[in-house]
Parts: sequence; structure tokens; C-alpha cells
Amino acid sequence: MSPMAPQYAPSLRSRLAPLLLFLQIGFIVIFAVYVEIESNIKADGTTFSSFYAEFQDVNVMVILGFGFLCTFLVRYSYSASGFNLLVAVMATQWAIILNGIESWYYRGKIRVDLRSLVVAEMCAASALISIGAVQGKTNPVHLVLIALLEVSGFVLNEWLLQTLLKVPAVNSIMLLHIFGAFFGLTLTWILFRKGSLQPFEKEKFDRHTGLFSMLGSVFLWMFWPSFNSVLVDNHSPGRKLGAVCSTYLALAVSAVTAAAVSALSSPKGKLNPIHMQSCILAGGVAVGVSMSAVHQPWEAMTIGFTAAVVSTIGLKYLKTHMLLAFECHDTCAVLSTHGLPGLLGWLAHLLLQIKASDDHTTAIRFAVFHICTLLITISLSLSMGIITGLLLKWNFWRPPQDKKCFDDQAFWEFPHLAVKK
Amino acid sequence: MSPMAPQYAPSLRSRLAPLLLFLQIGFIVIFAVYVEIESNIKADGTTFSSFYAEFQDVNVMVILGFGFLCTFLVRYSYSASGFNLLVAVMATQWAIILNGIESWYYRGKIRVDLRSLVVAEMCAASALISIGAVQGKTNPVHLVLIALLEVSGFVLNEWLLQTLLKVPAVNSIMLLHIFGAFFGLTLTWILFRKGSLQPFEKEKFDRHTGLFSMLGSVFLWMFWPSFNSVLVDNHSPGRKLGAVCSTYLALAVSAVTAAAVSALSSPKGKLNPIHMQSCILAGGVAVGVSMSAVHQPWEAMTIGFTAAVVSTIGLKYLKTHMLLAFECHDTCAVLSTHGLPGLLGWLAHLLLQIKASDDHTTAIRFAVFHICTLLITISLSLSMGIITGLLLKWNFWRPPQDKKCFDDQAFWEFPHLAVKK
Amino acid sequence: MSPMAPQYAPSLRSRLAPLLLFLQIGFIVIFAVYVEIESNIKADGTTFSSFYAEFQDVNVMVILGFGFLCTFLVRYSYSASGFNLLVAVMATQWAIILNGIESWYYRGKIRVDLRSLVVAEMCAASALISIGAVQGKTNPVHLVLIALLEVSGFVLNEWLLQTLLKVPAVNSIMLLHIFGAFFGLTLTWILFRKGSLQPFEKEKFDRHTGLFSMLGSVFLWMFWPSFNSVLVDNHSPGRKLGAVCSTYLALAVSAVTAAAVSALSSPKGKLNPIHMQSCILAGGVAVGVSMSAVHQPWEAMTIGFTAAVVSTIGLKYLKTHMLLAFECHDTCAVLSTHGLPGLLGWLAHLLLQIKASDDHTTAIRFAVFHICTLLITISLSLSMGIITGLLLKWNFWRPPQDKKCFDDQAFWEFPHLAVKK
Repeated sequence: MSPMAPQYAPSLRSRLAPLLLFLQIGFIVIFAVYVEIESNIKADGTTFSSFYAEFQDVNVMVILGFGFLCTFLVRYSYSASGFNLLVAVMATQWAIILNGIESWYYRGKIRVDLRSLVVAEMCAASALISIGAVQGKTNPVHLVLIALLEVSGFVLNEWLLQTLLKVPAVNSIMLLHIFGAFFGLTLTWILFRKGSLQPFEKEKFDRHTGLFSMLGSVFLWMFWPSFNSVLVDNHSPGRKLGAVCSTYLALAVSAVTAAAVSALSSPKGKLNPIHMQSCILAGGVAVGVSMSAVHQPWEAMTIGFTAAVVSTIGLKYLKTHMLLAFECHDTCAVLSTHGLPGLLGWLAHLLLQIKASDDHTTAIRFAVFHICTLLITISLSLSMGIITGLLLKWNFWRPPQDKKCFDDQAFWEFPHLAVKK
Repeated sequence: MSPMAPQYAPSLRSRLAPLLLFLQIGFIVIFAVYVEIESNIKADGTTFSSFYAEFQDVNVMVILGFGFLCTFLVRYSYSASGFNLLVAVMATQWAIILNGIESWYYRGKIRVDLRSLVVAEMCAASALISIGAVQGKTNPVHLVLIALLEVSGFVLNEWLLQTLLKVPAVNSIMLLHIFGAFFGLTLTWILFRKGSLQPFEKEKFDRHTGLFSMLGSVFLWMFWPSFNSVLVDNHSPGRKLGAVCSTYLALAVSAVTAAAVSALSSPKGKLNPIHMQSCILAGGVAVGVSMSAVHQPWEAMTIGFTAAVVSTIGLKYLKTHMLLAFECHDTCAVLSTHGLPGLLGWLAHLLLQIKASDDHTTAIRFAVFHICTLLITISLSLSMGIITGLLLKWNFWRPPQDKKCFDDQAFWEFPHLAVKK
Repeated sequence: MSPMAPQYAPSLRSRLAPLLLFLQIGFIVIFAVYVEIESNIKADGTTFSSFYAEFQDVNVMVILGFGFLCTFLVRYSYSASGFNLLVAVMATQWAIILNGIESWYYRGKIRVDLRSLVVAEMCAASALISIGAVQGKTNPVHLVLIALLEVSGFVLNEWLLQTLLKVPAVNSIMLLHIFGAFFGLTLTWILFRKGSLQPFEKEKFDRHTGLFSMLGSVFLWMFWPSFNSVLVDNHSPGRKLGAVCSTYLALAVSAVTAAAVSALSSPKGKLNPIHMQSCILAGGVAVGVSMSAVHQPWEAMTIGFTAAVVSTIGLKYLKTHMLLAFECHDTCAVLSTHGLPGLLGWLAHLLLQIKASDDHTTAIRFAVFHICTLLITISLSLSMGIITGLLLKWNFWRPPQDKKCFDDQAFWEFPHLAVKK
């Protein structure tokens, strides 16, 4: 970096505040005209109470789980948790609007209830996964724009899959892991900085804040059964229970397997905290994607086992390879954490469905449909990623210098800061 | 401070332990004579299960959320979280007794069920808000006394409003934000120390413990919909869903707006972590107070927007002004976090109700009632604050010296303390 | 320690990874052959939704609560939280299999539903209590073996009690506190190291990570009502509500009492954070064990009061005594936290039941049965503890040297570690 480079990160005052205020006031206006709260509810109230606890679990995952997952970086904890909240609520509001377009078209109004909030938070989760790939190298203005474009792409993808291929809503929304991961990877590939070939000055693991990361990870792990089961239809309670138990078992197996593979791949037989934070979740991702075809506990457990192996090995060897060979700097390893387990879940769904088919015709027809689903999802996520990346390369958004990457100080002012003892 | 001042904080052994034991044994005796567990329950158990998840959310807010909100102070994290637990459980037990006096009068017994626990925890929350204003400048003996007197005042206020003005219970309890904030402000004004014109030696933000504060804040943010909806009658599930969705949307808008105003009010366009921890909750406070008049999502969002603007600006400029002009040192800025958003919610309730009224007479009658509600609440909170403050000025309670303010070491002994690396 | 001692902890690569992979693949095979997900569910789905929130509370306690309770050690936070997750999921899978043996015998299949998951997690909790006694002086291979053997012993104990003495399932499972504590104490007595007469080099309280410990403790405190009530039959909702309210009140009293006794037993009247983290839970333990005999709030409160007094005094004086007099080094003080309150709960159950008996014969018969229950539980836990201890003394498992005790560095590799500022 040249000695003439500015010492401070560029001020976002004239970018962030107007953008947020403009978008927020715009959302309020759209809500004022088109959105109302669902009022046609069964009088017994069981629907509400049976849904609410799971809604809160998903809420905790999206706000706290994803938010604290990236706090292990030594100087980036406030940005990781604070921007996550900011991005999640922007993306949720935008997703409520986009998901309601069809209902607006037919009924003139968008109705909000707990289910639409959950679906919107899941769209936000797909944006948060994308953001994991570019964390630390972007400013909050970038993150908000990424979130809005990613959610738009994801909702479009869902609509395409449901309209063209008649994919059930529960299945199409679970592709969020694949869509989010590949969107994020394309984005970080386009936004590649030469400076990231060496680790950034502050791209370091910190033992104190790493525990917050462990906390976020544990919350994701604990509530993942809710994430996978919340949209499963309540009229068939067996399916819902099945989703919860399968996810729990897959997560349990993933945790054990991630520890085993981590110890095995270390010359001294030590565990890597990053593996224990990311790869224990692989089973939840994979079972979520293949949920509707998983009927036996051992199927879920085998999926969890394979997903954790793939995820841990990917995290160990693939991350550096992606950086050096493809110039793709993946901060939170979304490829290994969400991308590969998601693809594995897709494959497991295909194999289980073929196994369960009675005849060849059904099996082949399903395989074709299933492969088309994946192709559409990946093409759309790659193209949206490229578009978003090109938009963000514009210097108007004031990206932080390499030296200010992964640094809270670029975006946060700390009041009366205590001198470090 | 004179060189003759004692080096150690005064021992609380002869104050804290007897007070706690006396009160606790007293509570057990009262419970033994007057309290029983509700046994007359519908056999299907839906009431229990539909209420329990929300009860736990409120419990998490009161114990964990409020407890960790003040941990950002560099040397006060154990006091903030530990004393919060202590105060919350004392206040809850006391509130169960006070809330049951009417039932005791008519039936000879106080019945405890989940609803009475939730109401008692909300009374405790109002005491915890008050305590936010005096944190760090008081000892646990003070805090327990404040909690008991504040809860007594708050329950008296509720009873007055419900008896004199026929205010519905759900509405009167939501005034806890206003009552707690003004009680706390009066208290800290009476207890003013000359030494607090400069920041105390240890009144400093710490980056590591600040993340715990972020955690507490995020828990409050996530579960606020439960706080506002738990007491809404389950027989009209539409109202309950409305309360949840309105609160969620108001909180989402608050988070975005707080970030925008924080960036705008900083010369370098940076975010202030204190703003992101306190002001994102403003929408929840304001919508809670105006809940029964909010029917459209955009109303909740507009209230959330305004509350966050008021709260962030208040935190930025009003806090110092209060200290210098009125000698009122408000540690956790309860005026901006609970007081102003609460007043705003009261105003929004008034305006929305007037808008919804069919004729002038109803509107004017409602306005008069509504203004009386506020006047009674504020007068009572101010007078109780003055009484409590005068009681606490008594040196018998052994307040910490200025030098020992905001210092865990005055109240906690750390075993085998590791040398700081 | 001799100058020839190796500088590094022994590598676990050839022990941990094969053990975990072998066990996990074995579990998957057993699940594939014998386990299926419950499909015979009532169509209305209320059972699922009324159970799920409490299941998640217990899940949070087992994974997060117990996991973060031991993070106060200056260099052991990753091991405490990470190994806890590992051990909990191994123990849960093993407990599902063992608990299902009877069902397998009669029906050929083990059925998994939410209830069996909760029961399995409770068995895992009893293993986690045992592990609290040997934390820091063992490696993860030890911990996994301990967990499997402890769970086997505990399930055997339950089966004996239910078969021989017709103890109801809800009561026998609550003996997990007594069984786990005495198993752990025997184990740590057998595994005693001379080096532990002085505190280990890294056996120190750390103020930063101690807050994570506070967090874990607060989660246990908040969700303990779910732990005690989740298995209470839903057909008598009054009993379930009673369990929740009793546990809540006992915990509240415990928190106050622990603070009072802690201040009273300190010469300077200061609070001890370890007391505030462990002894506030004593009421939950004691009421859990005596649950089926507690009918009045004051009974629960008195039990909570006594349990907190016993627990705090035990922690203050008994822990050192146990070490010096019996060579029993109890890292997390499981004797005071779970053992003594558990015994107290057992005693309270006995006294309350005798008081409630109509005639002498019933009272004496109950007393005999109740004493037999305790004797069987303690004998079995001591013998299983001795067997496990002898197995673990084998050097094949590569225990860490004294110098590497309580040190994350022995088991974890920290990537790109930031230089401590």
C-alpha cells in the first residue's frame, strides 16, 4: 500500500444514512398501501401457539445465530453482529413485499402472518449466507445492496421453480443454502482484491471473541430442527415430528464426525475450533435440502455423516485452493458450510427418491425434474451474483481500503473507550 | 477525593446478608400463609402449552436481556448481570404478593399461575428499568430497596388506573416503561454526586464485554414480540397475531432507523455501538404502549421509525445535557431508551384513537382519560422516586465511594484470579 | 515435574478419531436395523406443539447451559464448550438405544419421538454432571468413554428402580443429579493425581470467560422449570403447572439465598461469582428430585432455601476438605451443586410423603421403599464409577500431563491466532 493512501476508512455518512432512510421510508409507504395483518384466523388459537415457538427459534437463528457466527475475527465482532441485524431486517421487510406480489396481484393486498414472517426470515437467511463470503471486505452499504438483490434473485428462483417445475414450496425454499452459497462465491470472485492473497492484517482468529462465535454456532445447532420443520405442514404431524427427529440425529452425527475428521486431518491430532463451529451444522443443511425424501433415522444420520466429512475436508483443503487457484476469497467458508452440504442434500434427495420409485419412468422423470431444479437455481444464483458484483465494483459505494478490512474501527466509534489492560 | 479516604469499599456483610435473609424468609412465610398454586385448570392443557413458550421468552428478556444489557462497562459486568438476577427475583416475589392482594381480599388466597408469574416479571422489568439509571453508583442493598419500592409504586399505579379510570390491565401494565424511566430519573437526580460531572474512573466502554451487552440487546430485540403479546387475550387470536406482527415490524424499522440516525449524527459517519444496543428497541417500547390502538402494519412501522429517531437523538444529545443542566446522571440512558419512546407510544395511542373515533365527544372523552392516565403515572413515579431517593441518601446503606463506583471489585471477590495476559 | 517430561500433550490422532468414527458408524448401523421414527400420532398435532417448546428448552440447557458452565477457567473455554457438545450427542444417541431395549424386546423396533429424545438428553445430562468432576484433567477420549459408561449405569439404575421397586419413570429419572454426582466423585477419586494438591497451573478463574459461565448458568436457571416439568404427564395440566411454578419459586429463593450466604461467609461481605453461578441452581435440583411430593409454593421455597444454604456452604468449605482429606479433586464442585441438593430433595420427598400419609403403615412402607431407592442408586453409581475409573487409569488413553491440564492448547489448534493486545 502506497504511503499516500489515506489513513482513515472513507466516511459512509453520505452513503449509508441516506440509503437506509430512503429504503426504510419506501418500505413503510409500500406497507401502508399494500400490506395488512391477517385477520381471518381460526378462533381456537392453536395455530398461533403451535407456530409461535418455532417462529421464535428461527428468529433466534437468523438474528443471533448467523450474527454471532462471524465474531471470531479479532477486530470485527461489532460489524459481524451489528450489520447482520441490519441486513436481516432489511432483507426480511423486502422479502415480505416480494413474496406477497402474487397475493397482491390476485387480491390487491399482501397479508402478513407468522408463516409469511418465517418465510421472509428464511429468504433473509439466504442473503446472510451470501454475505458470509464477503464479510470484512465490504461496508454496510454493500451488505444492504447485496441483501436486497440476493433476496430478489432467491424469490424469483422460488417462483420459477414453483411455476415451471411445480416444486413444492417447502422444497424450493430449502435450496436457500445452495442459492446463497453460490451467489456469495460469485460475488466474492468478482470483488476479488489482490491484497487478499495474504491474509489481511486483521483477518485473525481471536480466542475471546471466538467464544461468541461458538455461542452463535451452538444456537444454530440447537434450533436447526425448528428451521427444517417449521414450514412442514402441521396437518400431518408425523411429518413434522419426522423432520425434527431427522434433523436432530443428522446434527448429532455431524458434530461427532466433524470432531473426528478434524482430529484426523491435523498432524498433532488436535481439533480446529473453526471446524467445530461450522461443520457441526453440515447435517442440518443436508437434511434440510433432502427433507421430503428422508423417512428413516439412519438415512438422516448417514446424510449427516457424509455432509460433515465433506464439509470438514472442504474447509481444511478447499478454502485455500479456492483462494489461490480461483482468486475467490471466501471469508466464512460458505462453500464448505452451506454449498457442499446443500449439494449433497440435493443428491441424497435424488437417490432416495429414485430408490423409493416403483418403476423406471417415475424415477427418470423425477431425476430430470430434480436436475432442472438444480440447474435453474445455480444459473440464477451465478447470474445474480455477477450482476450484483459488477454493481458493487463501482467506487461510489466507498469500499474500505485493504488495510481497513476486517476492522470495526472503520465503521464504529467506541465511546469513552477503556484503555486495554 | 481526600488522601484520607478509605481505600476499600465499605463491607456489606452486615447489611446485604441480613436484608436478603430477612426479606426472603418473610416472603416464604407470606407464601406459606396466603399463596397457593392454581389448580382449577381446563383438562385439555392447551392453555398451559400455548402460554408457556411466551412466558419463557419474557423470562429470558427479564433475566438475561436486561441482565446483560449493562455489561458493556469495563469493570461492572458481574455486578450488572448478577445484581440484575438478584433484583429481578426479589421484585418478582414481591409483585406476586402485591398483585394478589385484591384476590386475597375477596377469596382469602392468592393463586399463582403462569399469567401471574408473567405479570410479576413485568413489574420486575419496570424495577430493572429504574435501576438502569443508577447502575454503578449504588450497592446491591440499594438496588433491592429500590426494586421493592418501585414495584410497590407501580402496582399502586396500576390499581389506581384500573379502579379510577377503568384502564384495561393490558394497557396499564405497558406503562411500565414510562413509570420505570421517570422513577429512575428522579432517583438518580436525588442521589446526584458531584463526582459524576466527569465520567467516573471506571465508567468506560469495553470492547470485549460490550459484546455481552450486544447479546443481551439482541435477546431483548428478538423476544420483544412476546413481551407485547403475552398478555393479549388468547380468545381473540387475531389480536395476538397482530401484536406479534406489529411489534416485529416496529422493531425491524427501529433497527434500520437507529443505524441511519447514528451514522448521520456522527461526523465521520460511523455507528455508535451504544445506539445499536439501546435504540433498536425503541420501536418495541413505543408499540407496546400504544398496542391496543395499532391495527395496521404501517402504523406500527411509523411509530417504530419515530421512536428510533427520538431515542437515538436523545441518547446523542440529551444525556449530557441532563447531566450538566439538571445534575441527573443517567447511566443506561433510560430516558432515551424507555422514557421518550414510552411517551411517544402514549401520544401515538392518543392520536390513533382520536382518528378512529366516530364523533367529537368520544374523542374528547378518550383524550381526557388518556391524559389523566399519563398524569397519574408520572406524578406517582416522581413522588415514589423522591421518597425512595431520600431513603437511600441515608449513609446506613453504605454507598460506595466515587472511586469505587462502576467497580466489580467493590462487591465481588474473584477466586484464584488469573494474571491478565 | 521432571525436566525430561515431554513439552507437548500426547497426540490424540490415533485415539480420538478412530474411537469417534467407530462408535458413530456403529450407532448408525444399530439405528438402521432397529430404530424408526414414531408415526402413530394423533392428527390434531397438539401433542407435538405442546411438547416441542419444552424439548427445546431442555436441549438448550444440555448443550448450551452445561456447555458454558465450565468456561470460567482461563484456558479451558473451548474444551469446556466443545467437548460438552461432543459428549452430549454421543450420550444422547447411546441413551436412545439403551432406553429402547425394552421396546425392542417386545416389538422388535425402537421408536423415536420427542419424549424419547428428551429422556435421552436427560441421561446425557447425568453424564455431563459426572464429567464436571473430572473436567480439565482428562482428554476427550476419556470423556466419551465416561459418558457411555455413565449412561449405561444410569439406564440400568432406572430399569432396576422401575422393575424392582415400581418407582415411577418421572421420579427415577430425576435421580440423575445424585447418580451423576456420585459417579463423578468416585471417578475423580480414582483418577486422583498428586499434582492436584496445589491448584494446577491453569486452574484459574478468568474474568472475561467467567461471563460466559454466567451466561450458561443463567440459561440453566431460566429453563430449569422446563427440565422439571417436561416429563410430567400432560393429561393432568395442574401437575405440570405446579411443577413449573414450584421450580420457578425454588430457583428464585435459591438465587437470593445463595447471594446472602455468599456475602455472609466472606470476611469482607463480598459475593463470590462461582457461588452465584452454581448455587442459584440448587433449588431446581432439589425440587426436581422431590417434585411429586411438593404441592404448596412454600414447600418448594423452603426446599430452595435449604438447598441453596447447603450448596453454598458446601462449595465454600467442603470442596477443599474433599481434596485434602479424601484426595478427591472436584473441578466443578458437582458434590455441592448436584449431589447435596439432590440428597436434600430426596430427604424432602421422604418427609413430605410421610407427612401426607394417613397412617403409619403407609408411611413406613414408603420410607423403606424410598431408602432402598437411594441405596440402589448410590451403590450402582459408586460401583460404575470405580469400574470406569479403573478403565481410564490405563495409559493407552493418553491422559494429559499435569502441566497440560486445564489447557485448550493440548487439544485445540488455533488458526492464524491474533497476537494478544
